[in-house]
Amino acid sequence: MPTSNHNPKVAVVVGAGDATGGAIAIRFAREGMAVVATRRRKEALEPLVNEIRSEGGIIHPFGCDARKEQEMTELFEHIEQAIGEIHLVIFNIGANVSFSITDTTERVYRKVWEMAALAGFLTGREAAKAMLPREQGTIIFTGATASVRGNSGFAAFSGAKFALRATAQSMARELGPRGIHVAHSLIDGAIDTDFIRENFPDKYALKSQDGILNPDHIAGQYWQLHCQPRDCWTHELDLRPWMETF
Amino acid sequence: MPTSNHNPKVAVVVGAGDATGGAIAIRFAREGMAVVATRRRKEALEPLVNEIRSEGGIIHPFGCDARKEQEMTELFEHIEQAIGEIHLVIFNIGANVSFSITDTTERVYRKVWEMAALAGFLTGREAAKAMLPREQGTIIFTGATASVRGNSGFAAFSGAKFALRATAQSMARELGPRGIHVAHSLIDGAIDTDFIRENFPDKYALKSQDGILNPDHIAGQYWQLHCQPRDCWTHELDLRPWMETF
Amino acid sequence: MPTSNHNPKVAVVVGAGDATGGAIAIRFAREGMAVVATRRRKEALEPLVNEIRSEGGIIHPFGCDARKEQEMTELFEHIEQAIGEIHLVIFNIGANVSFSITDTTERVYRKVWEMAALAGFLTGREAAKAMLPREQGTIIFTGATASVRGNSGFAAFSGAKFALRATAQSMARELGPRGIHVAHSLIDGAIDTDFIRENFPDKYALKSQDGILNPDHIAGQYWQLHCQPRDCWTHELDLRPWMETF
Amino acid sequence: MPTSNHNPKVAVVVGAGDATGGAIAIRFAREGMAVVATRRRKEALEPLVNEIRSEGGIIHPFGCDARKEQEMTELFEHIEQAIGEIHLVIFNIGANVSFSITDTTERVYRKVWEMAALAGFLTGREAAKAMLPREQGTIIFTGATASVRGNSGFAAFSGAKFALRATAQSMARELGPRGIHVAHSLIDGAIDTDFIRENFPDKYALKSQDGILNPDHIAGQYWQLHCQPRDCWTHELDLRPWMETF
Repeated sequence: MPTSNHNPKVAVVVGAGDATGGAIAIRFAREGMAVVATRRRKEALEPLVNEIRSEGGIIHPFGCDARKEQEMTELFEHIEQAIGEIHLVIFNIGANVSFSITDTTERVYRKVWEMAALAGFLTGREAAKAMLPREQGTIIFTGATASVRGNSGFAAFSGAKFALRATAQSMARELGPRGIHVAHSLIDGAIDTDFIRENFPDKYALKSQDGILNPDHIAGQYWQLHCQPRDCWTHELDLRPWMETF
Repeated sequence: MPTSNHNPKVAVVVGAGDATGGAIAIRFAREGMAVVATRRRKEALEPLVNEIRSEGGIIHPFGCDARKEQEMTELFEHIEQAIGEIHLVIFNIGANVSFSITDTTERVYRKVWEMAALAGFLTGREAAKAMLPREQGTIIFTGATASVRGNSGFAAFSGAKFALRATAQSMARELGPRGIHVAHSLIDGAIDTDFIRENFPDKYALKSQDGILNPDHIAGQYWQLHCQPRDCWTHELDLRPWMETF
Repeated sequence: MPTSNHNPKVAVVVGAGDATGGAIAIRFAREGMAVVATRRRKEALEPLVNEIRSEGGIIHPFGCDARKEQEMTELFEHIEQAIGEIHLVIFNIGANVSFSITDTTERVYRKVWEMAALAGFLTGREAAKAMLPREQGTIIFTGATASVRGNSGFAAFSGAKFALRATAQSMARELGPRGIHVAHSLIDGAIDTDFIRENFPDKYALKSQDGILNPDHIAGQYWQLHCQPRDCWTHELDLRPWMETF
Repeated sequence: MPTSNHNPKVAVVVGAGDATGGAIAIRFAREGMAVVATRRRKEALEPLVNEIRSEGGIIHPFGCDARKEQEMTELFEHIEQAIGEIHLVIFNIGANVSFSITDTTERVYRKVWEMAALAGFLTGREAAKAMLPREQGTIIFTGATASVRGNSGFAAFSGAKFALRATAQSMARELGPRGIHVAHSLIDGAIDTDFIRENFPDKYALKSQDGILNPDHIAGQYWQLHCQPRDCWTHELDLRPWMETF
């Protein structure tokens, strides 16, 4: 694993697979950070690795199941020992599914929670362990409309996203006074992804009017959160397109 | 399993072990309902069974692990077949623990969620399955301050209670228009329990001034929720002692 | 001004003009309280007075502009001196109007606030003055969906209803520990009123399915709030029909 | 009134008197905007005018009572006609007072609302009138902890701040889909002002540890809000020092 000569600060993006996670990784690399990007399958990170390296950025790809405590603990310890000091951690794994309550199986309810909440908790906890001795760092959790509203058909997804938000809030209250900035975003709208293009073409058509969120812009907002001076921190940041109903 | 000659309506109390669950069971039996009470260990229900039967009430005790999908499905099917129509279901299992974020193990985070959220989801889903064909019934989930606020040290507990609240909200929005009243309580204060008496004696001393919640009064409020006419339903009910800071 | 021989406890309903205020007055009179009912024009209270007296209830009608500090102060002082001890006060004046932001005049923004917020503040303050020496009593403010959500077209109405909710919250936190129960309702749906029947006939047609709120049922819920034991108080009570989207 | 040769975009800061409003004006001038700054007394703007002009910035000071409809209408019409196109408007007038409920006079309740809510409504409405024909612009309202929480002793202040927040929300929902970005900040902590230094010296002492908000940093965050691309707008931005309890 190559380490930069200049000991750049490390940003970890857990869930760098979709449009948003990738855009965040690219932005942080452009800002001069050494990016650690994870997905479940390391091979899937290749395009991102190529793009960042072609720009001269630093990226360390890892295959990692963020729901597994041991894998996460080992990953964060490895980063601190072999790559550098972790200053910024993003948790960006979602699991948006919709079922009527009677069609929601125990397996679905549990899997969605493991991906969206348990993995977020593990990410946040390991980030905190790395950052606490230095009393600085930023941890951002990606939330959604379902983080604050339990709509019909979303018992599993909202259950998981509410849980993640609670964990983020609890961490912010515990870790803020110890120098660590914990933030939670509320992404309230469709993002420009393959998933939206293929499944919600009418929604996707709003792209030409800026009616869906550009992942690069989300990445820009996350960077701004990281740059906030410590007398002026935001804990919860809602982001939505101008034409979105809320 | 004895069935009443008069086919009383059935109330199910999942988690009838602590002061609140027991008080709820007693109140519903006094209102003439056939009460199904569950705890993990059936033997632990004996005092409650004796009390309700000594008053002439109907109670069916069951040992049941509410985190197990199959056990819950079988329980609710059995009740409908052998006992009577389920009209009122209370989920009353909690798991209040507090750890700093770095001391919160994966096991704790998961166990607390399984008890406080997963079991609540399974209870609510099985209740819905029973009630939907009749398009009536009441489902009440017991929440807490931690359901709406992620305090320092409560990443696990708040995570689970937020998840339960999301599930309750989602069910209310899906099932309300199908005739089923889904409610969520916010119990914001200490309850008169052995746990509080032994661990928080200063708090418990407020009992003489009505500074902690009387389980019988909580039970009374739950009964009022069940009695609300369907043009006038409450979804979220906060309950706190007069002197409680909030 | 006739005073009951039995010194019944007094309930004051400020804004007893519409369906809800009237139903509340009738309910409280049936519960044996001496009701003081106010409207801006005293004559408009005649039907209510006749109905309550025909049932043997006690009612004292007053014409009073609840936006006028001196009128309110004098009214409450008069009640305490000449009628009896005030134990229950309801503020039930609304002012639901909708304008685009650019069409909202200063006059509208101010008038709506004076009716829905300022008058509520004066009612609550005078109620508190009367109740504080006895360290008991209940004060209930009628809220609406607009109390928690600022929808398009409702800058004035939501502005006023948010303000009333803030005042209720502040009073609850100050007066709760002094024995006074302050509650705020969130009526989230259409009420069975002439206004709805004439202006929203499609909505009104849902009455046959219990799709709009029955004022008698709202009155029943308010009575329940007043009856809550002081270890088990609700501050905010949402009320909506089963089929209402929320 | 001098107009820039380059037709710079205009930013209006209503309430440029305290530390925050002044810092915002300075920042916007540095970003190249022509700043219109208002206070009740125009003379009080002199230091700010001198500072901005000494840096080569453009500032137009106005004495204006923001609670007066006619003054505000005339001011905004004058700016559009004589100075330039209004692209950014900040409402920054507060009125933090605390009284027990029984000591809160009608006069105080009304004055606080006029300053913090009515003036904000008028500012927002006049801004909307100017911006709607161009379908672009940003309007930011400065909020506080009291905007979302009605604490004991703050019936008047919270009443006014809740009202302002409702107005901001309503405007955001109406004007967002017409191209205008309406945001509301929640400043949750003490700001580095003379008022805090003189009245809360213990709080002020936290300045050396970044425990109070630096007005320049608030100004920076407001500028970031204005710079958000329209697919990625924030409506509500909380800002607090790292060590602030929340």
